[in-house]
Amino acid sequence: MKYRIVSYVLGCVLGIEAAAMLLPFGCAVVFDEPCKWTFLLCSLICLGVSVPLILTRPKDKTMFAKEGFAAVALSWIFMSVFGALPFVFSGSIPNFIDAFFETASGFTTTGASILSDVEALPKSMLFWRSFTHWIGGMGVLVFLVAILPVSGGGNLHLIRAESPGHSVGKLVPRVKSTAKILYGIYILMTILEILLLMVGGFDWFEASTLTFGTAGTGGFGILNSSVGEYSSYIQVIITVFMVMFGVDFSFYYLLIMRKVRSAFKMEEVWIYLGIIAASIAVIFFNIRDAFGTSEEALRHSAFQVSSIITTTGFSTVDFDLWPQLSKTILVLLMFCGACAGSTGGGLKVSRILILFKSIIKEIKVLVHPKSTVKVKLNGKPLEHEVLRGVNVFFVAYMFIFAVAMLIISCDNMDFTTNFTAVVATLSNIGPGLGAVGPTCNFSGYSTVSTLVLSLVMIIGRLEIFPVLVLLSRKTWKK
Amino acid sequence: MKYRIVSYVLGCVLGIEAAAMLLPFGCAVVFDEPCKWTFLLCSLICLGVSVPLILTRPKDKTMFAKEGFAAVALSWIFMSVFGALPFVFSGSIPNFIDAFFETASGFTTTGASILSDVEALPKSMLFWRSFTHWIGGMGVLVFLVAILPVSGGGNLHLIRAESPGHSVGKLVPRVKSTAKILYGIYILMTILEILLLMVGGFDWFEASTLTFGTAGTGGFGILNSSVGEYSSYIQVIITVFMVMFGVDFSFYYLLIMRKVRSAFKMEEVWIYLGIIAASIAVIFFNIRDAFGTSEEALRHSAFQVSSIITTTGFSTVDFDLWPQLSKTILVLLMFCGACAGSTGGGLKVSRILILFKSIIKEIKVLVHPKSTVKVKLNGKPLEHEVLRGVNVFFVAYMFIFAVAMLIISCDNMDFTTNFTAVVATLSNIGPGLGAVGPTCNFSGYSTVSTLVLSLVMIIGRLEIFPVLVLLSRKTWKK
Repeated sequence: MKYRIVSYVLGCVLGIEAAAMLLPFGCAVVFDEPCKWTFLLCSLICLGVSVPLILTRPKDKTMFAKEGFAAVALSWIFMSVFGALPFVFSGSIPNFIDAFFETASGFTTTGASILSDVEALPKSMLFWRSFTHWIGGMGVLVFLVAILPVSGGGNLHLIRAESPGHSVGKLVPRVKSTAKILYGIYILMTILEILLLMVGGFDWFEASTLTFGTAGTGGFGILNSSVGEYSSYIQVIITVFMVMFGVDFSFYYLLIMRKVRSAFKMEEVWIYLGIIAASIAVIFFNIRDAFGTSEEALRHSAFQVSSIITTTGFSTVDFDLWPQLSKTILVLLMFCGACAGSTGGGLKVSRILILFKSIIKEIKVLVHPKSTVKVKLNGKPLEHEVLRGVNVFFVAYMFIFAVAMLIISCDNMDFTTNFTAVVATLSNIGPGLGAVGPTCNFSGYSTVSTLVLSLVMIIGRLEIFPVLVLLSRKTWKK
Repeated sequence: MKYRIVSYVLGCVLGIEAAAMLLPFGCAVVFDEPCKWTFLLCSLICLGVSVPLILTRPKDKTMFAKEGFAAVALSWIFMSVFGALPFVFSGSIPNFIDAFFETASGFTTTGASILSDVEALPKSMLFWRSFTHWIGGMGVLVFLVAILPVSGGGNLHLIRAESPGHSVGKLVPRVKSTAKILYGIYILMTILEILLLMVGGFDWFEASTLTFGTAGTGGFGILNSSVGEYSSYIQVIITVFMVMFGVDFSFYYLLIMRKVRSAFKMEEVWIYLGIIAASIAVIFFNIRDAFGTSEEALRHSAFQVSSIITTTGFSTVDFDLWPQLSKTILVLLMFCGACAGSTGGGLKVSRILILFKSIIKEIKVLVHPKSTVKVKLNGKPLEHEVLRGVNVFFVAYMFIFAVAMLIISCDNMDFTTNFTAVVATLSNIGPGLGAVGPTCNFSGYSTVSTLVLSLVMIIGRLEIFPVLVLLSRKTWKK
């Protein structure tokens, strides 16, 4: 591995983090909170580590897949380590491993928390917590590629390793421009949601933190009741935006380019919306009797379905009290996740679709062994490489799942809690069921499990392989 | 589809079932139980349906994959329907769906029961219940191929559809001879276990029923406490034979042929034994304190691990009371299952191994994109078709899992119960955790769920695709 290019990228990432911390610093200044100095200090620490790393910048900036994967995986680990410092230094989360979990949960847009009382935190701390969602949603490396003055083959490797989905949609031939377009759409939708929430009576602080949580499909709220206490209007706006941020951003790009027909030909988007509609319908009939009005039952089922499938993790009610059918649907949606190329996590609808089609293909081949059936997506046959990638991702997801289950089961929590804790972190959802349900948190786990689940979140956000590449001895050979 | 060849095969299968029912009839005669006439009547019913079907025998006996799959899937459904009649007619299990569940559980060697008091059943009924395990273990179609006077390309399709594992080991060039060898080994090991159990003080009835349960990796016992009340000697013998019946039968064939080196080169067998040893070790240390002596803790952990990984499902203690780590290991072993080419169910160790190796391969390719890495088994590179088959099987397994979970969750049982009920039936284990734990049974589920879980057992035993082929419209075209 070319160490210098990797350390250079790490330096840039920490530089961005140093800059990012100035926002909560500003927030602390506005609210005149004592922790403003903490943010300034942490920002300086990031900068202090960043500058020497940036100075390692090699002349030869070519980067291979190996370096790309390693740089992205290490960046996310570093970001979470340094991002945890404000929580530790301010005493908001004194234990470093807990703070690391909380920050990894933020950047990976998971939204799982070890805090039982978020309202006790200073506002600037809550702002930082939510802002990590926004940074992590589109990805800091994508941002880096968009602003970095250099361009080259390496950029694609970085975006590939960081972006979710089975194939990175290069919207335009240049990777740099693609990154800019993605961030452009992201920022536009973020502003739109902030404005619409402010129309509903939110102040800028509430509107921006909640929007960061929605845009990154994260799920950190600023109240202990998540989104439960807000008005119906706010809940509906957040529902709609959660669904929107779970759509492949190529869809919006095509719409902007007025390629409406191409946009509406995207199979994944339709299936995604279909799954949402079907799930809402079933859950609505399943929970109808528990609510006073149909409007309420519909609103809560729509909110929870959207929150879970997009892997956001906000909640308006304690769905752990719902009937088993509704809960099972939600757990299955946790595996499913949102569209590829969105800010959501999970296996992704397109992968589920491809896997489902490969079963249908297998049956056809069994019935007619001589027929040549191809798995198609959006009307186009998929290459063997794509199919293999999707399959191996699915397998790796399940293996990581099993290993994580095994480790955290040492804490002797019940099966449902452990199972949903792993899916909630690996798919970057946030809440699960049982002791990690929407009204509970992850503080019941031991230090080892907390650390393991933190890594599981990063593994899930980076879609497994960048982190696994770090474990290969060959990666570290000069 | 060529209907006549399929109905001919069905006729033969029911003929065999008619003959098989004469054994419990004999048993009822020996114990002078009134239900002997039930068995005779049911045997005659089977014969009555069988003869006209056999008469449809077409001149052209060529069979394609389609007919092979359909014949096998339909045979197993028919076998379970007719096999349920003695339970219904004798009043042992008055509800037909329950009796169908119990019989499907028997033939598929699952061992899940809806009976809360098996000791209340007549001995001949218990004999029939256990004997279905023995028939289902090696497969009735394999038996058919071994004894049927005709031979041809169709035989291979039948064996392929019925035998577990990613590739059917044709031990010798002729399919018929392979089937004979497999049944030879099966009968030999069965006799050996019966004798060893009788040495331990069992009478012929106890020895044969328990052996049937072990040989088929089924798990139906004749006491409410399963194997818990028997002596240590009996428990150890059953442990050893469970492990032996979970080994690929090719291993024994190679040993008999004195190809000892080839036998010991079988990677799957070593990994299988390695997983067993590791699981026993961890569980032993995890449960050590709960037992008076180390011998006891070791015996129970070895018994439960062997029972679960081989998908037998006998139990000596209520492992639902064990710590979560031990329970999680057992649940993961439920997915794993035994060796391909054994009588066990589950995903099979070889598939897990291949899937694991494909992850390692992927990492290698990511680190060195130009390297050409091949997934190997037993030192030989695997063909693309095999890899695809293993992948699609894994995916299909998980899809069936999700669908079954969804349907049975309508009964509002808890998550752990539903989850382990599905894995226990799909992998043909028997007991799960929670309300379907080793001291409980499946009677809590509704009629619809009971039917669904019955089908899940058959789908699991036939490794999914033969049953899915039935659902394809093209299969039914003339």
